[in-house]
Amino acid sequence: MLQGSAAPGSCYFYYPRLVCVVGVRDEAVPTVNLAPITWATPLSTDPPLFGICLSPQNHSHALVLRTGEFSVSYLSHEHAELVAAMGRLSGRSVDKVRTLGVRLAEPSALRTPWLADAYVAVECSLVDRHHFGDQTLLVGEVQGVHAAAEAFDEDGVLRVREVAALLYLGSNRYATLAPPAR
Amino acid sequence: MLQGSAAPGSCYFYYPRLVCVVGVRDEAVPTVNLAPITWATPLSTDPPLFGICLSPQNHSHALVLRTGEFSVSYLSHEHAELVAAMGRLSGRSVDKVRTLGVRLAEPSALRTPWLADAYVAVECSLVDRHHFGDQTLLVGEVQGVHAAAEAFDEDGVLRVREVAALLYLGSNRYATLAPPAR
Repeated sequence: MLQGSAAPGSCYFYYPRLVCVVGVRDEAVPTVNLAPITWATPLSTDPPLFGICLSPQNHSHALVLRTGEFSVSYLSHEHAELVAAMGRLSGRSVDKVRTLGVRLAEPSALRTPWLADAYVAVECSLVDRHHFGDQTLLVGEVQGVHAAAEAFDEDGVLRVREVAALLYLGSNRYATLAPPAR
Repeated sequence: MLQGSAAPGSCYFYYPRLVCVVGVRDEAVPTVNLAPITWATPLSTDPPLFGICLSPQNHSHALVLRTGEFSVSYLSHEHAELVAAMGRLSGRSVDKVRTLGVRLAEPSALRTPWLADAYVAVECSLVDRHHFGDQTLLVGEVQGVHAAAEAFDEDGVLRVREVAALLYLGSNRYATLAPPAR
């Protein structure tokens, strides 16, 4: 059943992954730059740390270092087109919020807005960073969580019947979860 | 629609995530210890780096530092029970491979076996590590990929009609993907 080894990098073995939209204030415009990413992971429970990977060439990378914070917003599958459009545009030349008609919501813990259409979003303060290969892992401490009222159950688990979370498969393809059998 | 901020840590905002089983040689037994985790992420394309989070208290943590390598195996949803059992047992007191009747496959690039039932598995050499909060991010360079013949398409994208990848929701609950509409 198993073929011989494929070359590293030739196979998206690590997908599907949740799409999250990183928001960072660009005070020069002013706007919030929006970077959809999937290379992200919780890193610690206590303190609650969450890491996002950005290329040092990425516009948002410089903005996170400048402002010292970022938001992370999770969207449902119906927003796949919007997310793809965010990925195609560069915040260096375009105000994505204005161009794409994105609605922002006000932060409560820090100063960086998040996406009003998110089913959940978190506010993170930058507490560490580390270069690994061609990316930087930017480590945020979660300072606030904004969750849609129906999105998570009493255990803090996503209600997969209510929220069709947006997952990325690689190569510009998206998916969502199957609801469990009743 | 959005409620006020929830306390950080009270909401599993970062799930669903793919389950991966970390394999590490325990030469004292000898066996391969198996740790199911979900806090993992690609970190770099060139070189191909993949990071896994383990607590310094975890038995596998010490083994990775000792052997300098680990395997990462991805299973389909039908193996959810097996994965849960791996998580309940400790490799300090039990040989999980023998106890759970797990079939291993031989490595080709390094020396650490992987799970024969995996739809994809990779062999990683430890190249870096970094402590973040209560976990260690162990950074592996991908040295070999073993993919089931039907699991990925010509673009290297998971065939979601063929493989029901095992995803974790938090609180001992699992899910899989919905196949896309035809």
